[in-house]
Amino acid sequence: MTIPPALQPPSRLLLGPGPSDAHQRVLRAMATPLLGHLDPAFLTIMAEVQEMLRAVFRTGNMLTLPISATGMAGMETCLVNLVEPGDKVVICNGGFFSNRMVDVAQRCGTHVTEIKRPWGGVFPLDEIAEVVRRVRPKMLGVVHAETSTGVLQPLDGLGELCRETGTLLVIDTVTSLACVPVELDAWGVDAAYSCSQKGLACPPGLSPMSFSQRALDTLHNRKAKVQSWYLDLSLITQYWGQDRSYHHTGPITSVYAIHEGLRIVLEEGLENRFARHRRNYKALRAGLEALGMRYVAPDAHQLPQLHAVYLPAGITEELPVRKRLLETFGIEIGGGLGELKGKIWRIGLMGCNSRADVVYSLLGALERVLSEAGLGIAPGAGTIAAQKAYSAAG
Amino acid sequence: MTIPPALQPPSRLLLGPGPSDAHQRVLRAMATPLLGHLDPAFLTIMAEVQEMLRAVFRTGNMLTLPISATGMAGMETCLVNLVEPGDKVVICNGGFFSNRMVDVAQRCGTHVTEIKRPWGGVFPLDEIAEVVRRVRPKMLGVVHAETSTGVLQPLDGLGELCRETGTLLVIDTVTSLACVPVELDAWGVDAAYSCSQKGLACPPGLSPMSFSQRALDTLHNRKAKVQSWYLDLSLITQYWGQDRSYHHTGPITSVYAIHEGLRIVLEEGLENRFARHRRNYKALRAGLEALGMRYVAPDAHQLPQLHAVYLPAGITEELPVRKRLLETFGIEIGGGLGELKGKIWRIGLMGCNSRADVVYSLLGALERVLSEAGLGIAPGAGTIAAQKAYSAAG
Repeated sequence: MTIPPALQPPSRLLLGPGPSDAHQRVLRAMATPLLGHLDPAFLTIMAEVQEMLRAVFRTGNMLTLPISATGMAGMETCLVNLVEPGDKVVICNGGFFSNRMVDVAQRCGTHVTEIKRPWGGVFPLDEIAEVVRRVRPKMLGVVHAETSTGVLQPLDGLGELCRETGTLLVIDTVTSLACVPVELDAWGVDAAYSCSQKGLACPPGLSPMSFSQRALDTLHNRKAKVQSWYLDLSLITQYWGQDRSYHHTGPITSVYAIHEGLRIVLEEGLENRFARHRRNYKALRAGLEALGMRYVAPDAHQLPQLHAVYLPAGITEELPVRKRLLETFGIEIGGGLGELKGKIWRIGLMGCNSRADVVYSLLGALERVLSEAGLGIAPGAGTIAAQKAYSAAG
Repeated sequence: MTIPPALQPPSRLLLGPGPSDAHQRVLRAMATPLLGHLDPAFLTIMAEVQEMLRAVFRTGNMLTLPISATGMAGMETCLVNLVEPGDKVVICNGGFFSNRMVDVAQRCGTHVTEIKRPWGGVFPLDEIAEVVRRVRPKMLGVVHAETSTGVLQPLDGLGELCRETGTLLVIDTVTSLACVPVELDAWGVDAAYSCSQKGLACPPGLSPMSFSQRALDTLHNRKAKVQSWYLDLSLITQYWGQDRSYHHTGPITSVYAIHEGLRIVLEEGLENRFARHRRNYKALRAGLEALGMRYVAPDAHQLPQLHAVYLPAGITEELPVRKRLLETFGIEIGGGLGELKGKIWRIGLMGCNSRADVVYSLLGALERVLSEAGLGIAPGAGTIAAQKAYSAAG
C-alpha cells in the first residue's frame, strides 16, 4: 500500500461541544517519554492525579480516579458497577445524554423509570421526589450539564432525597467539571463521571470518576460479577489503590496529560475559573443575541460553557454556516443532536478556550458569514455587544 | 491543596512485557494540536489508520479499527459483540491472558469449555479439533502470543476447523502484532485484537481490532443488544464507517499516535520488522543463556519479542534484581504473573526497542547486577555471547 504522509492537520479553534482545544502545556506534556505503568515514579504521578481530581470534584472520596477510556465509558462504569439485573433505576431524561443513560441502564438488565421533559427542560425537585419516593429505585441518574441542550440541572435537595429513600445519586458531569461548581460531597452525590476534553482542556481519552462510601458499599455487596471486565471497579481499584496489582496497562500519556491539565486548573483556582467562564459567557451571549440567536435553555439554567442556540431568522440550513466557519476561519462549532439536529448550533467556550480573544474571533467570523448569507446585520453588531458586556462587568 | 510539581519522570528504557518505549516520532506527533472528532481532516486520518491497520493485520476486513481503550478492552469488544448469554465457547487456556478470556466470556453469560495446559505449554491442533468437534461452540478463543509465558501458539488448521464446525475463530494478538507474522485472512481468523504499546511502539490507549464478514454477520444477527454500550460495534462502526455519526468522542491524540506508529511500521516493511525482531532475539537469548537463564516456553514456540526466563541458579528473589536495574540503570524489565510470580523475569524487545544497542545495554547491566549478587559470571559473558550471535547471523 501507499504509506500516507505525516500528519499535517489544519489549524483549528475548537468551539464545538467538545473536544475543546487542549492547553499547550498539556500537549507538551504528552511528548514526554513513557514510564512503565507499575514504575514507582508513575505510581506517584497517579496518586497526584487522584488527589487533584478530589480537589476538582470537591470530594474526599478515596475511589476517585480516571477510567482509561472516554467520558461515555465513565457513564457505563458507574452503571455496570452499581446496578444489577432486576434493579430499579430512575433517570431524568430531557436530552441526548440522559437518553443514553437510559440505554446503558437497560443493557444492565435494570427496570428504568424515566422522568421525561421536552429537550431543554429542567426537572423540578418536587417532581423528581414524587417519582423517587414512589419507585424507591436503587439509583437515580441525573445529567448535571446536558451537552445537547446547554441546560444546567440544579441538584439541590437530591442528596437528601436519595438518602431518605436508600437511593444512589449518580450524576453526569461530562460538560460541567471545572467550568461550573461541582460539589460531590456537599451535594451528597454517590457517583459522578466526567471527561478530559472539555473543562480540563486535555485531549479526549480519560473519564475522571468518583464513588462515595455508599457507592463502594454497594459495589462490595454485589451478588453478581460486574458485567464488564474492563470497567470492573473492584479490579481497577486494585491497580489504583494500595495493591498496585496489574489490571490493564494504564494509558501513561493520557495520565501525563491530565496531570498537567489538573495542575493548570488548580493554579488558576476553581472559583477564578468559574468566574472566567461566566464572564466570557455573558459577552458571547450578548454577541450571539445581537446577531439574532436565542437560547434553547431557560436563562436561569443556561450553562456558561455551552451555548445551544437556534439558527437566526433567515438561516434555514445549519451546515453551510458551520462549513464556512471551519473552512475559511478554521473555527469549529457544533450542530444539534437528536431532535435538535438541523435546528441549532452548539458553541463551547470551555477550559482554555473561554477567553475574550476567542469570543471576538468567533463573533467577527460569524458576523461575516451571516452577512454573506443575506442577514441584515449592522457592522460589528455582535462584537460591539460583547464589548459592552465586558465593560459592564468591569 | 499543594499543587504537585510539573512532570519530570526519570529516564527509562522499557524492556518489560509492555508498555515498550514509544518511538520519538510518535511522541512528537502527540504534541500536535487537536482536530474535532468529526472534522473532515480527522476523518481522513481515521481512514488512513484503518487502511494501515488492514496492511499490518494482513486483512481486507472492512471492520478494522482501533477501539478507544487499551488492549484488554479489545478482548472484551470481541467477546461482547460475538457471543450472547447461553452460547458455548471454547478457550485454549495455558496462561494469564487466556485465563482472563475465560473470565470475560463468563461475564457474557456463556458456557465456557477450557482446554487446559500447564503454563508455557502449546496446544496441538488435534487436541483443539477434538474438543471443538465435540462441543461445536459458537466461538474458539486462542491467545496467539501469550505475554505471561512467551509462547507463540501456532494457528495452522484452526481456520479450516472453525469453518467446518461453524465456529468463530477469535485470537489475541496483543503481543504479536507487528513483531511476528499475523495473517488474519490467510489463517481464516474471524476476530482479532491487539494493543498500541508493544509492536506498534505507541503509548497504551488503543486496541486495534478486526472482524471478518462471518463475525459481522454474527453481530448483525444478534438476538440481544450488546451488553456494553461503549464497546458495541454496531454503534462504533457508524462513526468509523460511512455514516460518521457521533458515538463517543474519538481520542484524537491517540489516533495521531497510531497513525505515526503505523507509518513507521510500514516504512520499515513487515518482513524487515519481523527479521529485525528475530535477529535481536537470537542475540539476547544467547546472552541470557550465557548468564544462566533458561526459557519458560519450548524453543520452537518462543516469541522473539518477549523473553520469559527463569531466575538463574543462585538468585532466589526476583524483585531486588529488577529494582537494581531500574534504579541504577533506568532499565525496566517485568516479573512473572499468576503461577509464575516470583519465579521468572519477562524481558521485552518490542517495536523500536528491538535493537542491538538495547541488547548490549541490558546485558551489560545484568552482568553487573548478577555479579554483585554473587553469581560467578565470567566478565562480559552475556555480551560476548550476544556479539557472537550477531556475527553468526552476518
